[in-house]
Amino acid sequence: MRAVYDDIMTTRGTDWVNNFFKALANDPVTLRRTWQSAKEVMAPGVLNAVTKEMIYLAVSATNQCPYCIASHTASARKAGMTDQMFAELMAVVGMANETNRLSSGYQVQIDERFKTP
Amino acid sequence: MRAVYDDIMTTRGTDWVNNFFKALANDPVTLRRTWQSAKEVMAPGVLNAVTKEMIYLAVSATNQCPYCIASHTASARKAGMTDQMFAELMAVVGMANETNRLSSGYQVQIDERFKTP
Amino acid sequence: MRAVYDDIMTTRGTDWVNNFFKALANDPVTLRRTWQSAKEVMAPGVLNAVTKEMIYLAVSATNQCPYCIASHTASARKAGMTDQMFAELMAVVGMANETNRLSSGYQVQIDERFKTP
Amino acid sequence: MRAVYDDIMTTRGTDWVNNFFKALANDPVTLRRTWQSAKEVMAPGVLNAVTKEMIYLAVSATNQCPYCIASHTASARKAGMTDQMFAELMAVVGMANETNRLSSGYQVQIDERFKTP
Amino acid sequence: MRAVYDDIMTTRGTDWVNNFFKALANDPVTLRRTWQSAKEVMAPGVLNAVTKEMIYLAVSATNQCPYCIASHTASARKAGMTDQMFAELMAVVGMANETNRLSSGYQVQIDERFKTP
Amino acid sequence: MRAVYDDIMTTRGTDWVNNFFKALANDPVTLRRTWQSAKEVMAPGVLNAVTKEMIYLAVSATNQCPYCIASHTASARKAGMTDQMFAELMAVVGMANETNRLSSGYQVQIDERFKTP
Repeated sequence: MRAVYDDIMTTRGTDWVNNFFKALANDPVTLRRTWQSAKEVMAPGVLNAVTKEMIYLAVSATNQCPYCIASHTASARKAGMTDQMFAELMAVVGMANETNRLSSGYQVQIDERFKTP
Repeated sequence: MRAVYDDIMTTRGTDWVNNFFKALANDPVTLRRTWQSAKEVMAPGVLNAVTKEMIYLAVSATNQCPYCIASHTASARKAGMTDQMFAELMAVVGMANETNRLSSGYQVQIDERFKTP
Repeated sequence: MRAVYDDIMTTRGTDWVNNFFKALANDPVTLRRTWQSAKEVMAPGVLNAVTKEMIYLAVSATNQCPYCIASHTASARKAGMTDQMFAELMAVVGMANETNRLSSGYQVQIDERFKTP
Repeated sequence: MRAVYDDIMTTRGTDWVNNFFKALANDPVTLRRTWQSAKEVMAPGVLNAVTKEMIYLAVSATNQCPYCIASHTASARKAGMTDQMFAELMAVVGMANETNRLSSGYQVQIDERFKTP
Repeated sequence: MRAVYDDIMTTRGTDWVNNFFKALANDPVTLRRTWQSAKEVMAPGVLNAVTKEMIYLAVSATNQCPYCIASHTASARKAGMTDQMFAELMAVVGMANETNRLSSGYQVQIDERFKTP
Repeated sequence: MRAVYDDIMTTRGTDWVNNFFKALANDPVTLRRTWQSAKEVMAPGVLNAVTKEMIYLAVSATNQCPYCIASHTASARKAGMTDQMFAELMAVVGMANETNRLSSGYQVQIDERFKTP
């Protein structure tokens, strides 16, 4: 558990661990696996850190998860998300949630052109 | 209805309208409002087109909306999403959906540092 | 099982049973309980039948349940839902799904006036 | 922003603006678009105000959005929702959420009669 | 209402009623029906009490329902759920929520072998 | 990729790989991580294999994920789930989804006794 905490703080350049990972510490197997996965998935790749954090926030707002929204708003801002980026992100999240239900409610069939081969 | 269809095709540079907007044509008020909102929200701003389309896709995959996933995968690819970008997007979407439930299941309290003033 | 099927057909004034209740027939306890609850809940009360069916459809579209959307669109229309009523219903469902995420994403606090005593 | 606030108060016949729209004020484009859409969608049409508010509440309870539930319970009551109407609304919302999962869990196929042409 | 409260306390072997059923007391019909259903559904059958409570908790964590998570964590522990059982439960819930979105996002087709006859 | 496929087949005692992992093969990093996590999480622990598969199915039915429902119904049956166990599982899933919305819709406050220290 100590080793995971140290890696969390080193990777993030902080001297504290947030409540999410403290809660997982009750289950060392899940703690280690979740942190390793998060570290691998959230590392910059072809998508940069702020884009990944905004995608994370889009999912969390869609799922209405208060803890996740609060923590990933903070990490997205730390990674460079400005007020204007947040505003555009939320506008897309809102609209996608609206049109998702319109397309299912209207029982829209998938266009042939959109089908994967 | 015709005017909206024309604007959809002109804005997108295509000669066809997808099934979603055809379904909404039964309700001209919703058709016009939804298209105007989509046009405004999805236009490049501080976030570019492919980032917005990926956020849209993140929401649609989270909501398990087959039509929206198919159509916005197509539009995200058209806007420049590569296989690798899609893979990273899905990895973040999957992980966020996992940790959203871990944080609620473990009843994690929001850290003071994450609270908005 | 036979008694429940007969009651379903009598209550609805039809000579057939839909696939949902046929599937539940594998579990007579759930079949009977679900039908009794549905009969009690969907019977006209201070809300009439078409209003109840539209609320059912609003939930089903929000949950993106294809079977439920198809079956309750049919029953709502049978109960009197017109094209225009459906259009207004879907517009509200879409908007509510949008603003639900905006309010959680923006971490909006509940106004004092909205709190229940 | 001021113009939108004034329109909100005039339309509602109140002298205050709720936290939701105050939060959106950080993004004038989303504020204006969301208010215009809400004003158009929630205005009485073939569905009256209280029916629309109850549909909104059905979606919000399904999505488990605390702010939306609190605010739209208040607006539904203002529009005429009684205790008995609320009770029947919640009973339908609960039942629909139950049967949505039974139909997907049992992998129920859509009846031919329910398919749209 | 009194009879239902008494039955709740007798069935549970407690001298108090939790807030959920107190809230439903505003609607005696829903109170009685919900309690009767809960009593029937949650009684040990081929699945024992702790397994049923863990399934209930899996759903509640997936839906991000704070009240349900708190109350059913308590009842699952009362029925015998240990820390280790809770940890394994949450790990499965997290993983299922992740792979649910990967399979929809990747538009995975159902294998022939998984199709029901 | 080959090594992961071989491990999937060896672990499961089968000579084929299902479409889910074939789809992930487009992204070797996600394929390996997802399989390793699934292998770790789904291995029998204090919860046995069939209990874990039923929890997985409870989440998938709640999220309305057709692929996941089909594949995990198959794997749960392979692990020993009988018709009666499935029936009781679905009854709990349905009821939990119903009461989750009743508790949020009625804005039920968490009982002091249910609060974690």
